[in-house]
Amino acid sequence: MESSARADLARHIRWRRFAQGWSQERLAEMSGMHRTYISAIERGRVNPGLDTLERLAQALCVPISALLEAPAP
Amino acid sequence: MESSARADLARHIRWRRFAQGWSQERLAEMSGMHRTYISAIERGRVNPGLDTLERLAQALCVPISALLEAPAP
Repeated sequence: MESSARADLARHIRWRRFAQGWSQERLAEMSGMHRTYISAIERGRVNPGLDTLERLAQALCVPISALLEAPAP
Repeated sequence: MESSARADLARHIRWRRFAQGWSQERLAEMSGMHRTYISAIERGRVNPGLDTLERLAQALCVPISALLEAPAP
């Protein structure tokens, strides 16, 4: 986990995915990505582009900004 | 301008940069990027990665999420 932004994204993606009751496979299918890429995002191992963030947000029905919020201090 | 996320980012970067009274050159210097890349972001021509968004947010002293908020409806 290299950056706090990657960590924040990973946490939000996982939480939102759980909230939908979705597996990584299901989120991959809904966002048009590969399951291994979803897994890598959830471990903070990749640097997703803005277009990818937008597809994930659309699949999860949330604003992109909601996927990047830092934890409350 | 291909995606609404790119358009939202472009608008926020430009506004925040103006608010600081910074040129594109100055933002480039503060974020460790090239001026032409800042220009391309402000025209929605590129797909910046999350690590790049984090560097821009740090340079502008705002949370990343603030750079991606959609306009109020």
